[in-house]
Amino acid sequence: MKILITAGPTHEPIDAVRYIANRSSGRMGLALCSAALAARHDVTAIFGPVQLALPPGVRRIDVETSDQMHAAVLAEFPRQDLLIMAAAVADFRPVRLTGDKLARAGRLTIECEATPDILAAAARIKQPHQRTIGFSLESRGNVARSREKLARKNLDLIVYNPIDTMSSATIESILLYPSGREEPLPLRSKADFAAVLVARAEVLWRNKT
Amino acid sequence: MKILITAGPTHEPIDAVRYIANRSSGRMGLALCSAALAARHDVTAIFGPVQLALPPGVRRIDVETSDQMHAAVLAEFPRQDLLIMAAAVADFRPVRLTGDKLARAGRLTIECEATPDILAAAARIKQPHQRTIGFSLESRGNVARSREKLARKNLDLIVYNPIDTMSSATIESILLYPSGREEPLPLRSKADFAAVLVARAEVLWRNKT
Repeated sequence: MKILITAGPTHEPIDAVRYIANRSSGRMGLALCSAALAARHDVTAIFGPVQLALPPGVRRIDVETSDQMHAAVLAEFPRQDLLIMAAAVADFRPVRLTGDKLARAGRLTIECEATPDILAAAARIKQPHQRTIGFSLESRGNVARSREKLARKNLDLIVYNPIDTMSSATIESILLYPSGREEPLPLRSKADFAAVLVARAEVLWRNKT
Repeated sequence: MKILITAGPTHEPIDAVRYIANRSSGRMGLALCSAALAARHDVTAIFGPVQLALPPGVRRIDVETSDQMHAAVLAEFPRQDLLIMAAAVADFRPVRLTGDKLARAGRLTIECEATPDILAAAARIKQPHQRTIGFSLESRGNVARSREKLARKNLDLIVYNPIDTMSSATIESILLYPSGREEPLPLRSKADFAAVLVARAEVLWRNKT
């Protein structure tokens, strides 16, 4: 398969020196790249700003903002078989206040707007042969919210993972399928999880073409 | 001298996964640590969240938020001779909205309050034998603003540097002294700049004790 993986955070500028970011180490994305390469897939990775070396063989596209990631995904997805969105894209970005540096003051109000929903945008241009997998970091137990995203974004699989396992070397998750099937994956290393996810993606790919 | 150096950005949580940050690579702090060690000073470094290896011999204290940096500086400064504040501390932090993850919505307003002014706090407990040096990243040409900070924060030296040289491997600066003296330092590597700043700090130290 030709696999497109997004990973890392995005940074949304507030002014010339400040930005809003999401906590994301990019390590899940790195694990997915490694697992996909090990399974001999063709891997393109769109990474937000993290300092991580990727294994040789990955075509890497570096971006900073959600707008840049959005543009990169829309440009790359048409030539791919599978999109795995593991990036922690900022859901909000400041309505740009100034290109200069804000002076310290007693209070500051940062007005934010929603960033483009990249997975939903990819869903709109998704061809019948293409597969999309998303991640859904939610409050523990809020699987219903992940299931709602699975349907709304026309995904073939969504990974629910509870927020309290964030920034960890391990991941606890439940794989949710459109059929209603749920596959719990108890706590394991991100490398082990990534190998399972790539194997499940291969099944999705084989079963529907 | 016993030198305390702050460096790197701070991260100010918005919710469980999002934060406000300042662009700072921590490389100036690293250069200052190296220059101070090379000049055989005793070096303690308080670093915000950056992935940078420091030279062996530096006592390193890792912090994440401006509150943590504030507490660390107030705890460490009394036993130091010199404080160099090279950290890009966030001037604003969200009035904490939620410990959970905010759902995406059409708009979001982040109310922020000023973070503690760490250099001003250090100035309040500064003993006659102690020296303090600050950095002032300003719009190009706004040296007056740096001079105002020099006075207000009771500093012995402030480094004006124009914002357009940010995130660079080099730095262009003007050293400002309480006497009114200005020492322009044209563009040079951060390592070369750091060696000059440590040399100037040694003069400040010798001249006033």
